[in-house]
Amino acid sequence: MANFKGHALPGSFFLIVGLWWSVKFPLKYFHQKGKKSRLSLHYQRLEIIEAAVRTLFSVIGILAEQFVPDGPHLHLYNEKQWVKLMNWQHSTMYLFFAVSGIVDMLTYLVTHIPLGVDRLVMAMSVFAEGFLFYYHVHNRPPLDRHIHSLLLVALFGGSVSVFLEVIFRDNIVLELFRTSLVLLQGTWFWQIGFVLFPPFGTPEWDQQEDTNLMFITMCFCWHYLAALCIVATNYSLVYWFLTRLKRQGGGEIIGIQQLKPDHPDQTALLNDSEEE
Amino acid sequence: MANFKGHALPGSFFLIVGLWWSVKFPLKYFHQKGKKSRLSLHYQRLEIIEAAVRTLFSVIGILAEQFVPDGPHLHLYNEKQWVKLMNWQHSTMYLFFAVSGIVDMLTYLVTHIPLGVDRLVMAMSVFAEGFLFYYHVHNRPPLDRHIHSLLLVALFGGSVSVFLEVIFRDNIVLELFRTSLVLLQGTWFWQIGFVLFPPFGTPEWDQQEDTNLMFITMCFCWHYLAALCIVATNYSLVYWFLTRLKRQGGGEIIGIQQLKPDHPDQTALLNDSEEE
Amino acid sequence: MANFKGHALPGSFFLIVGLWWSVKFPLKYFHQKGKKSRLSLHYQRLEIIEAAVRTLFSVIGILAEQFVPDGPHLHLYNEKQWVKLMNWQHSTMYLFFAVSGIVDMLTYLVTHIPLGVDRLVMAMSVFAEGFLFYYHVHNRPPLDRHIHSLLLVALFGGSVSVFLEVIFRDNIVLELFRTSLVLLQGTWFWQIGFVLFPPFGTPEWDQQEDTNLMFITMCFCWHYLAALCIVATNYSLVYWFLTRLKRQGGGEIIGIQQLKPDHPDQTALLNDSEEE
Amino acid sequence: MANFKGHALPGSFFLIVGLWWSVKFPLKYFHQKGKKSRLSLHYQRLEIIEAAVRTLFSVIGILAEQFVPDGPHLHLYNEKQWVKLMNWQHSTMYLFFAVSGIVDMLTYLVTHIPLGVDRLVMAMSVFAEGFLFYYHVHNRPPLDRHIHSLLLVALFGGSVSVFLEVIFRDNIVLELFRTSLVLLQGTWFWQIGFVLFPPFGTPEWDQQEDTNLMFITMCFCWHYLAALCIVATNYSLVYWFLTRLKRQGGGEIIGIQQLKPDHPDQTALLNDSEEE
Repeated sequence: MANFKGHALPGSFFLIVGLWWSVKFPLKYFHQKGKKSRLSLHYQRLEIIEAAVRTLFSVIGILAEQFVPDGPHLHLYNEKQWVKLMNWQHSTMYLFFAVSGIVDMLTYLVTHIPLGVDRLVMAMSVFAEGFLFYYHVHNRPPLDRHIHSLLLVALFGGSVSVFLEVIFRDNIVLELFRTSLVLLQGTWFWQIGFVLFPPFGTPEWDQQEDTNLMFITMCFCWHYLAALCIVATNYSLVYWFLTRLKRQGGGEIIGIQQLKPDHPDQTALLNDSEEE
Repeated sequence: MANFKGHALPGSFFLIVGLWWSVKFPLKYFHQKGKKSRLSLHYQRLEIIEAAVRTLFSVIGILAEQFVPDGPHLHLYNEKQWVKLMNWQHSTMYLFFAVSGIVDMLTYLVTHIPLGVDRLVMAMSVFAEGFLFYYHVHNRPPLDRHIHSLLLVALFGGSVSVFLEVIFRDNIVLELFRTSLVLLQGTWFWQIGFVLFPPFGTPEWDQQEDTNLMFITMCFCWHYLAALCIVATNYSLVYWFLTRLKRQGGGEIIGIQQLKPDHPDQTALLNDSEEE
Repeated sequence: MANFKGHALPGSFFLIVGLWWSVKFPLKYFHQKGKKSRLSLHYQRLEIIEAAVRTLFSVIGILAEQFVPDGPHLHLYNEKQWVKLMNWQHSTMYLFFAVSGIVDMLTYLVTHIPLGVDRLVMAMSVFAEGFLFYYHVHNRPPLDRHIHSLLLVALFGGSVSVFLEVIFRDNIVLELFRTSLVLLQGTWFWQIGFVLFPPFGTPEWDQQEDTNLMFITMCFCWHYLAALCIVATNYSLVYWFLTRLKRQGGGEIIGIQQLKPDHPDQTALLNDSEEE
Repeated sequence: MANFKGHALPGSFFLIVGLWWSVKFPLKYFHQKGKKSRLSLHYQRLEIIEAAVRTLFSVIGILAEQFVPDGPHLHLYNEKQWVKLMNWQHSTMYLFFAVSGIVDMLTYLVTHIPLGVDRLVMAMSVFAEGFLFYYHVHNRPPLDRHIHSLLLVALFGGSVSVFLEVIFRDNIVLELFRTSLVLLQGTWFWQIGFVLFPPFGTPEWDQQEDTNLMFITMCFCWHYLAALCIVATNYSLVYWFLTRLKRQGGGEIIGIQQLKPDHPDQTALLNDSEEE
């Protein structure tokens, strides 16, 4: 879908995932800190829901790419030529993310699947996206090619980072890094939409102009800084929120006892941070 | 052997290895789980047999490349020019896999060879295949070059993954990753055969057509998804089979005792999974 | 600032950082050696001051790039064209280092920030510098492009090395490696200044001459050897200085006791090295 | 020194180092096996001697490159042009290996140098050689460029492998890998000499001929297989020799006792392997 919507939609998808992760990973980190145990049941349930939602989104993406009015409607080869290969490529990308979501769910639901397989398939999904993009942007004007190829930096970097999580699982730094790269991808998709398909009647960008390329390169760095800021802000908000909960609970001993049966993790956090 | 058979044969070879690995690694994983000990004698014997078969296949590959009617028949330089360098290159690839098979056997047979050498030589074999392919495909039409160069992704990825096993030995995720890449290679060889040398009289593909390249890139991703599905299916079948064995055994206490002397690993698995 | 000063200033900045690190890391290493504990309060204070100074320098860099007479004065787009993108790119580089400095400070000041985030953001800052440089040097004469692109080796190498510190934190070898690369960057900026903008009226270098490129490549290696020498010298000086302090202290038992309250780490070092 | 000798000399240098390592590393491995302790004094002395010899060789290399009749005789810039930059580049390569040798010596002689610095500097030396080679071979005929660039695979692979030893020190697999790459380099230098400067009056190779490139690529793989065979053979010889020593000693108890004061490591090996 080479138009503004076709970039805004996946952009929003990645943004939502990134925003959610920038809340989830700090939450998990603060709850786990100082505890030797595995993830609690609450978190497993959360992970399964997240994976299900990601799978759902991806399936919607596939269906949208296939059944938009000018889509291929599941026809691949017709009258001696390929039908709407762009849409098919996008569908393939979504398909990988759907598979990754399903594997994530299975890893938490089925005990005999080894931990790490979820990360491997996620790394492969991100790699496949980058791989398809790499061959996607041949034969396009310079600015178009450049603005898409910058995405490859985020994608291949993210793929390596997620792959590292196969070995260094539950490393908060790698998880925050991954979060920042997903946010970068989300905002960058919106940027691509604004540059290549100006939505509000603003004049088109000159695709050959060299300074436009220079600006876009720099702009990509700004987007990453913005992504870092979002991660940092949400991380702090989560901490502040948990500390406030703790103080409120700590003020009334009865409060803690009332919390205990419902939120076992949280009181563990409270005790834990008091020990430090 | 630049024809359909010349691609179907190595393809089948890699497919068989991949299918076997997708059974072997889950089996090993379930048996080892929870046990601190080294691999049992059964598995060592299995590994030696596998390595011997791989070596045999590779030697057959070398002989086939050398002694097909239009092969070099071990002549390398003749009448001031190189003889059938393509066949020699393929022979070299097989030779590396033969060496890797021999080193695998030796690692299990001879106790003083350090663990990890087998993985190193296997990583080098895969790298050598990629290395030769990289320079193999110069000066060919675009589709031919592209379809072969996609293989490099699987090869260099596999090489890095196997090299990681030098350090993270017996990591089930890396082993399943390697398995999926071997399967990918196997199915992709068949795909190359079908595209470049259509066997059933179907019309040839236009080597210059850009949409063909686009489709092939996407098709490569589908092959990987298929490889993942095969790995997942066989993994589940192995689990289901072992669980059924366990249930049958668990129903009759005498059954377990009868099993014990013959299948020490398996009963260990049963006890093990009951503890969890 | 495409002139001699514009290269000498960042060069000096990196040189100072490198020289300081080549003193700090050996100091930390000798003090920590044999002790299981975390960094002492002294060192945390030192790290915070260092990060603050780095942030300050970076802010000065941003302001200088923006408000030099021919700078953009915070105007980005004017009269349908981008304003002084070079200066904006340099500002962006400094901005990344400022962010890295701030994160460093926060990591030591705020206890709930996970260790390793500081290294991650530093790795990203170095990567961003390399990333911008990579697209910076298009369309320039060969020598100009070559001399700048050599910097990329130091930058991407440094980025990977700092990223490794996320996982292998406080590894003295990685820290000294990072130090040597920062020194290399510092001296190389000076070299660029001397080659591209000869300051003392010396004749300009022929930008097309191939032997100039060959010399510059080799010269880069010499710079790295010089950087290694500086690191080695400062490392030895720190050791010699600490040993002299120890001897003076060891001669008079009262001396040690007088030192103890003020320099707890140092006497620990003394005892420690006597135990070995 | 662009002639046969100029390639045979460094080739022999690397071959000797490789052959020595293929004896040293197995020796060290068998002696250390099962012992928790650090390297014995014997080995430290051996390492120092090896490093000294390597440094000596490198200094001889530098002097040879500088003072051969058509060398630069330490003149770098003369009559407005660079003097013999090729020889200077080779000198720089040797200089790096000399520095690496000195650092190796210092690491064993001076206790306060952190382990791993020796590996880091060695990795940098190998990288510098590859780095200079990379820019060395511009503007040459295809075969010349290709045959030199294949060396880069061995050099960058070796650099990464040695760098890994910073973290995974004394890993026998990485050490044998490094050994095989040094041997490959040694034999390949000889190969380059034979191809580019045929010594025995054999006709010159056609530098443009495509099949020559194909053969050379494959030939590189054969050299690596040969290097692997050399490593395997020497490894086995060392094992066989140590086992024979053990048997002779084991047959006569007095024999062991006589050996003990002179060869403490060896008897440790005997006891050790009996325990297994």
